[in-house]
Formats: sequence, C-alpha cells, structure tokens
Amino acid sequence: MIIPSPPASVDFNGTWENGLGSEMDLVVNVNLLSGEYRTNVGLPAPSEEFDLTGFVTGDLITFTVNFGRYGSLTTWAGQQTETSTGQVEIKTLWYLTKNVPDSREPNELWSSILAGAGTFTRP
Amino acid sequence: MIIPSPPASVDFNGTWENGLGSEMDLVVNVNLLSGEYRTNVGLPAPSEEFDLTGFVTGDLITFTVNFGRYGSLTTWAGQQTETSTGQVEIKTLWYLTKNVPDSREPNELWSSILAGAGTFTRP
Amino acid sequence: MIIPSPPASVDFNGTWENGLGSEMDLVVNVNLLSGEYRTNVGLPAPSEEFDLTGFVTGDLITFTVNFGRYGSLTTWAGQQTETSTGQVEIKTLWYLTKNVPDSREPNELWSSILAGAGTFTRP
Amino acid sequence: MIIPSPPASVDFNGTWENGLGSEMDLVVNVNLLSGEYRTNVGLPAPSEEFDLTGFVTGDLITFTVNFGRYGSLTTWAGQQTETSTGQVEIKTLWYLTKNVPDSREPNELWSSILAGAGTFTRP
Repeated sequence: MIIPSPPASVDFNGTWENGLGSEMDLVVNVNLLSGEYRTNVGLPAPSEEFDLTGFVTGDLITFTVNFGRYGSLTTWAGQQTETSTGQVEIKTLWYLTKNVPDSREPNELWSSILAGAGTFTRP
Repeated sequence: MIIPSPPASVDFNGTWENGLGSEMDLVVNVNLLSGEYRTNVGLPAPSEEFDLTGFVTGDLITFTVNFGRYGSLTTWAGQQTETSTGQVEIKTLWYLTKNVPDSREPNELWSSILAGAGTFTRP
Repeated sequence: MIIPSPPASVDFNGTWENGLGSEMDLVVNVNLLSGEYRTNVGLPAPSEEFDLTGFVTGDLITFTVNFGRYGSLTTWAGQQTETSTGQVEIKTLWYLTKNVPDSREPNELWSSILAGAGTFTRP
Repeated sequence: MIIPSPPASVDFNGTWENGLGSEMDLVVNVNLLSGEYRTNVGLPAPSEEFDLTGFVTGDLITFTVNFGRYGSLTTWAGQQTETSTGQVEIKTLWYLTKNVPDSREPNELWSSILAGAGTFTRP
C-alpha cells in the first residue's frame, strides 16, 4: 500500500529558466511531475526538447531529464524558496551521468558523473 | 518534436538491493522507468513502498523516489557495470532534498541536501 | 620526486565573501593555500575564525575548513571565472562531513554528508 | 583567536588504498593532515606522487590533492568507520575540478566538476 505524500504547497507548474539560457515546462499531477526541458549548453539545439519526469511534495522537487540521444541523463534535487527581494527560485544541485563504453569502465567509470548547481526562476 | 533516445542496452527490470537492506523493483518501458523502493534506513518501515520514476538509456540510469510523507525526495544517477568477477552492479551517486520550513530557509537552506553513493546488485 | 604544478594564474589572495555573510581570507604560496574562514550560518559566531588549507593552480581552487569544534569539516572545489558584466567570481561545490557517533554509523553514516554550492566574490 | 578543535580520535596515519589501485600516505599533526597521493587512474604514472593537505577531527577527514600539472584538483570528505566484519574504512565523496579555458567558461564551466565516491582501506 502506498500512503499518500503531501502535494506541492507551491506552484511548480509552467515555465522556468536557469539563467544560462536553458528552460523547462513543468506539469504537476499531485506528486508526479512531467514536462519538457530545452538546454542551452552542450550539443543540442536550444529548441530541442527532452522529456522530464520527477516528483514534488511541499516545496521540494526532484526531476530527471532524458538526454539519452546525446549519451547522458541528468537529475536535479532542490527546493523552492523566496529571496529577500521576493523572487521565487528553485535552488538545485544536479548530477549528469554520461556513458563510458563497457571496455573502458574498469578504468574510467570513476569519471562518468558531473555535478553542478542550478537556480531556476520565472522568465 | 522529441527525437528518440537509445533504449536500455542492459536489463534494468526486476529487483535490486543496495547492501544496506534497501530494495527496489524496476520496470522499464523503452526509456521510462517506474517502480517501487523500500528503504532500510531512516524512519520508514522496511516494508513500506515508495513510488519511483526515472529514465534509462544504454547502461545509464537516473531515478527519483518520492519519500514525501517523510519530508524528502531522493534522486540517483549512475551506470550499470560489471565487476572484474562478473557481478552486475548499478553504481550511483544520489542527492536527498529535505524540507526546511520557509521561515528558516534564509539561514538553513544551505543545509537541505544530503549526498551519498550507492551500489545496487541483484539479490 | 614531485614535479611542479602551474602556479595560480589569477589572484586568489585576500578577502572573499559568499553572499550569505560568510567570509574568507586567503594567502597563496605557489600552489599551497592557507587562510581563515568566518561563517555566517550554523552555530559559530560570525567573528569566529576557522583554519583553511588547500591548493590553487591556474584558476582552479580547492580548500577545506576545520569546523572540528562544531563536529564537521567542509571542503570546496571550483574555479575562478568572470561574469559577462566583468565580476570576478569563484564558483564552487562543497561537501560537509559531520560526525555520526560510532554506535549509529551502521544505520546513519549514509546521512553524514551535506552538499551545496557557493559563489565567492570580492567584498 | 582560534579555539582548538578535537584531535583525531582514530588513527589516520600511514598508507591507505582505494581498491582502484590508488594509494595515499597520510601524516597527522593534531588537526592538520599532510601526505602524498598516487593515482592509478587517468594520465599520471602510478608511481607519480601528488601533494595532499587537509584536516582531521574525531573520525572525520577532508583532504585535497594537487593534480595541477594534469589540470585538476580533487577534494575528498568523509568519515572513518568499521564494517560489520571489523574492517576499518574511510568512506568518502569527492569533487574534481578541472580547467576550462577562460574563453569557453561562459558555455562550459557548468561541466567542470566531476563527482564520485571512494572507500579507502589499509593495504
């Protein structure tokens, strides 16, 4: 039996941008998050869309994006907050896992995960 | 338009355990991952199940688990690999975001994300 | 034999602040970094100083601070960069390891590391 | 004034290895850690030594290694613990910051930090 989790207490729906030109459109369905992500870094064209899935509860959020056709998956974890000037932000940390060919995994798997931070705001 | 990503090249379906008594049951549908997670650490009972969503492509995996009723969400990123002795493993890093009450966010949001590593194997 | 590493290519010496009220004074000696850190979050008084050691090379920096009398150690890794408006910044990710009593380590060691991001600028 | 921190409560001195062929020799002086690191992954020869600095307090440890001549610095944070079979381990997470040329920083600085986990044991 799955006991319910608290729904989102803040509005995650709609468009967010990260200050580096990447954007995401989020749709909340109780705790389940879905959407599309457009990245402004790396190889993809800025208009290219990538599927997003994740969860929200209270003001917490996790989401992962399928960059599989570019050989990686990225996942974010964070929390919505308000700055002292009243700006709504989602502050996150992320991991990106990228493919290491099987033959190189014994020596190179240690180098397969990038880490970073991102702050999303309303456009 | 969403261009397809390569499907999983290895079998992620079924049950995995992390050596600390936590387990997960994964179901792959092309790139989309769903399932249930049972944790052996923290407050939940070991039999309690938590929803899981994520992605797979090639031997890469990301997944997030909704621990919302315990005030947190966790997300993992990693890669399936084989040890020198032939054991199949999913090696991951994870972030757990936990709620900080709004009134404390200005001073305590910095302390809201735990990080760790986990290795999942077949039971 | 230790082959030399390139020295810092940018100026890390002097005072930096992180926008949350914490400050650090850095002294560079070729690759070795030393200094003091004053934190504005957590239990310590803002005037309390904590020892810092680390390395610099090119525009890269790592440093760790001894918060041992408050039961933790923190370490940062990052790079100096310049924003599009010409502001000099050190952008970092950090880990904080905090003590878990030995008797609880089997069940709680997984929760002992906090992660976050910090950006340091000139006061 | 610097108030003292508790010294190490466990023995960090001497040689540790990480199971991937990398080794380090640690010397503790109250809270200050120094030593040398030899890596078995990446470009350096396994016999090449890299300077290490860091801190210890109680069973906590942070240390950073100067891989500057290979364009990176790495820093670890963790805790010494004992497995259920009595093996002494230092369980850590690490960040590696690698150089991005200044001209590419606006677009690529996000990809400059690798993250991972490492467990050190006695040889």
